[in-house]
Amino acid sequence: MATFICRYTSGWNLLVSQRTKVCATAANACHSIQVTRKVFAHQDATAQSFYGEKKQNLVLKVPKGTHDVHPKQMAIREKVFNTVVKCFKRHGAESIDTPVFELKEILTGKYGEDAKLIYDLKDQGGEQLSLRYDLTVPFTRYLAMNKISRIKRYQIAKVYRRDNPALGRYREFYQCDFDIAGHYDPMIPDAECLKIMYEILSELELGDFLIKVNDRRLLSGILTVCGVPESKFKTVCSSIDKMDKVPWDKVRSEMIEEKEIRPEMVDRLSEYITLNGGLSLIQRLSEDPLVSQNMVAMEALNDLKLLHRYLEIFGVTDKILFDLTLARGLDYYTGVIYEAVLLSDKSSQNPTVGLGSVAAGGRYDELVGMFDAKGRKVPCVGISIGIERIFSIAEKKSEESGEKIRTTETQVLVATAQPMFLEERMKLLTMLWNSGIKAEIMYKNNPKLLTQLHYCESTGIPLVIIIGEQEIKDGVVKIRDVATREEVEVSKENLVEEIRKRTS
Amino acid sequence: MATFICRYTSGWNLLVSQRTKVCATAANACHSIQVTRKVFAHQDATAQSFYGEKKQNLVLKVPKGTHDVHPKQMAIREKVFNTVVKCFKRHGAESIDTPVFELKEILTGKYGEDAKLIYDLKDQGGEQLSLRYDLTVPFTRYLAMNKISRIKRYQIAKVYRRDNPALGRYREFYQCDFDIAGHYDPMIPDAECLKIMYEILSELELGDFLIKVNDRRLLSGILTVCGVPESKFKTVCSSIDKMDKVPWDKVRSEMIEEKEIRPEMVDRLSEYITLNGGLSLIQRLSEDPLVSQNMVAMEALNDLKLLHRYLEIFGVTDKILFDLTLARGLDYYTGVIYEAVLLSDKSSQNPTVGLGSVAAGGRYDELVGMFDAKGRKVPCVGISIGIERIFSIAEKKSEESGEKIRTTETQVLVATAQPMFLEERMKLLTMLWNSGIKAEIMYKNNPKLLTQLHYCESTGIPLVIIIGEQEIKDGVVKIRDVATREEVEVSKENLVEEIRKRTS
Repeated sequence: MATFICRYTSGWNLLVSQRTKVCATAANACHSIQVTRKVFAHQDATAQSFYGEKKQNLVLKVPKGTHDVHPKQMAIREKVFNTVVKCFKRHGAESIDTPVFELKEILTGKYGEDAKLIYDLKDQGGEQLSLRYDLTVPFTRYLAMNKISRIKRYQIAKVYRRDNPALGRYREFYQCDFDIAGHYDPMIPDAECLKIMYEILSELELGDFLIKVNDRRLLSGILTVCGVPESKFKTVCSSIDKMDKVPWDKVRSEMIEEKEIRPEMVDRLSEYITLNGGLSLIQRLSEDPLVSQNMVAMEALNDLKLLHRYLEIFGVTDKILFDLTLARGLDYYTGVIYEAVLLSDKSSQNPTVGLGSVAAGGRYDELVGMFDAKGRKVPCVGISIGIERIFSIAEKKSEESGEKIRTTETQVLVATAQPMFLEERMKLLTMLWNSGIKAEIMYKNNPKLLTQLHYCESTGIPLVIIIGEQEIKDGVVKIRDVATREEVEVSKENLVEEIRKRTS
Repeated sequence: MATFICRYTSGWNLLVSQRTKVCATAANACHSIQVTRKVFAHQDATAQSFYGEKKQNLVLKVPKGTHDVHPKQMAIREKVFNTVVKCFKRHGAESIDTPVFELKEILTGKYGEDAKLIYDLKDQGGEQLSLRYDLTVPFTRYLAMNKISRIKRYQIAKVYRRDNPALGRYREFYQCDFDIAGHYDPMIPDAECLKIMYEILSELELGDFLIKVNDRRLLSGILTVCGVPESKFKTVCSSIDKMDKVPWDKVRSEMIEEKEIRPEMVDRLSEYITLNGGLSLIQRLSEDPLVSQNMVAMEALNDLKLLHRYLEIFGVTDKILFDLTLARGLDYYTGVIYEAVLLSDKSSQNPTVGLGSVAAGGRYDELVGMFDAKGRKVPCVGISIGIERIFSIAEKKSEESGEKIRTTETQVLVATAQPMFLEERMKLLTMLWNSGIKAEIMYKNNPKLLTQLHYCESTGIPLVIIIGEQEIKDGVVKIRDVATREEVEVSKENLVEEIRKRTS
């Protein structure tokens, strides 16, 4: 995006006073007046600043890692959001909203190493505030604060991370979250979350995808039986999590050299964490002499078997892959975790290498309890759709397809071929608006017919109403189909009906 | 809202390790373990913080001046937003989105005295950022940055003001903005903005309302002819703006004592600014011996006459009142300004005293030019709907009416009267979801029928499907109407059709 240096000009009061002097001689002369003023950069903005002599070099840009969304992009986004919300509602979700910032201490201790990416607000006297980092922690704060022990809710809102834009990461981005909170029988809500992920990614038609599934309890059990000390679990997991991007020998040496895990442990670990597959993998691990000794791992494996059964019933197992390299960075997960990746055409050889994650989630049974005065737990499981990546893909697909995206829904432009019909156009327009028809006029007293027709073509308005002296005399209007250029006359009484018929 | 003090417990790694030891004896025993840890308030959140001994007194609340929005409120909001967006689209608007924060200097010098209410972000290395104070300044920054010279767009987003919550003002609130930018013939876009305001307030059925209209040029002209020095325009306007809340004698003494305006000027001023009325007022002012000498005032009066003519055609003059006390606080307005107030039953005696502003706007022809390197102007006019106040009124009305608000759209609950039918319920559910039916089950292996029926009643689900051994054998399901308690049997093949018929 281009940036410009621009010079400050004046506010309304100054403008008006300039005009006061000028308008007596020529109404438009004030447009040629150049007001040069000095503004000091970063000075406090007060009423005062309108009067003094000012000059400022203003860089015209959006903050690093953020972006404006243009009308064409908004039109695509609206479609994507509609698909997502429709699915959430199909699954019986309510919605809630929470503030964009939280008390800083609410976010403290929830995000592990990522906490350094949290945006803080300046201390302007009052509370210490931070912009939300995700929707999950505010959701659990909401549950604890309102003593809600069961809810199925969705929330679509922006979250904020001071991440590195050089890596293609936005600092402000939407998340679409769906979560089920409450004490329920095992794996039923978990399976529904995966079904939702499957439905949304299928309906958005983004291409082939895969949902990787793992369980934090299984990972912990395997780390335990391989002899990794508990104090190293987190750091080893963060190495494991890189395995979809970095080759194994590099991950191996990182574990040995940087994280000081003994080589024989790493090699024992590698026998497990390089595994991925379907139900048979879970079966095999259940019978593994080491893993089967660990009760936590076995609890996870039994749950994963049950989950697989439910996913079979939901008809989504064709996209499910149990993948032991999946670890997920956030601290709060306690059970099943999952991540959906889009597959490129090439990735059929190695399905674990995708185009990147577009949805993720898991079970977090402890987070609400962290906020509750008596430590009361509310088990939760949920998904978060990484909608920004989906937007980019949808935009790219739309561009490639060459389809014309409309940015408005206007059904008809009320036009005229002759001068001096503004009021007549306005009367018709009022009738259309009052009947619920989406209609526009050009904001000119005497627009050219060609300009009006071009406007319809460029914005995709399908119909034009054309009025002139003769039509007004006869009490009719001409309707023109912009695409076919066919014109018919209808009476004013039948106009609304006719437009509805032609645009339904 | 209640606040609690709560104690921090552990993250997942700790949890898992606790479980490792416990699960061998009893799978659920870990629930009874109390982990007491010390956390130091405001310490940096790092992976480290999960391991040390910690304790923290955490106040569970949302930031001052903000609030969570509950599912019932969200359901009401969704309806209000739909009405607003539908109207904006009926008038041919596109939509855009801009970041929640802007470079601080973008906001500098646009808000007069209100600038002290801007939220700044902490300097964490990098740019100086502030949360947006309204949607208008970001919109004009967007236009200048992208060199857009004409657009009709809406934007619905939250804005941030460090205002006094004691006065009932939120610090985070939605604005719904519609603006028309571009060089057009006079008053045509301005009239459409007022038509939109009228349509939205009518369709929301909030009660009687009034749209006050004034013009900054008229105000300036009047101040000029009354002899008020130009340097006092702003401060005098802020006094005038209080006249809908404060009696005239108090405003008068504020002007004389605090703002040092000579009494004879104030008294001359009072002859004008206490006026309000319809077209005849504009006519009267045009013929006023003093006002008619001022070219800027006359320009405004001619525009207001034209505006009134257009508003007549649009059929909205019954709610329009020209009111010279209307000044609007923001610096950037340059022409017509307006503000809609809801009227209480009592306010029929004095229509200028309303329940408070619910929508406002005006013309701001200079703001884009302030951002443009070459000072190129893009005239703009727009409205902003004060949607939070509308939400409160809509919530109150909904409460008073006693109507039951549904927070989900679920059409059917798949239930069972007998144990062990989870998988059968799931199979039916899958069929329904895949057919686009909004459906739920209770997440239990063996829920009681009564519990399932109660769930439907409390959440407003209109239909229950009941399956049992006999139904499965016969390939049928029972559909029960929750309200009438009528039950019919239908075949599985006809189920989707039957549900659609009953819920359409």
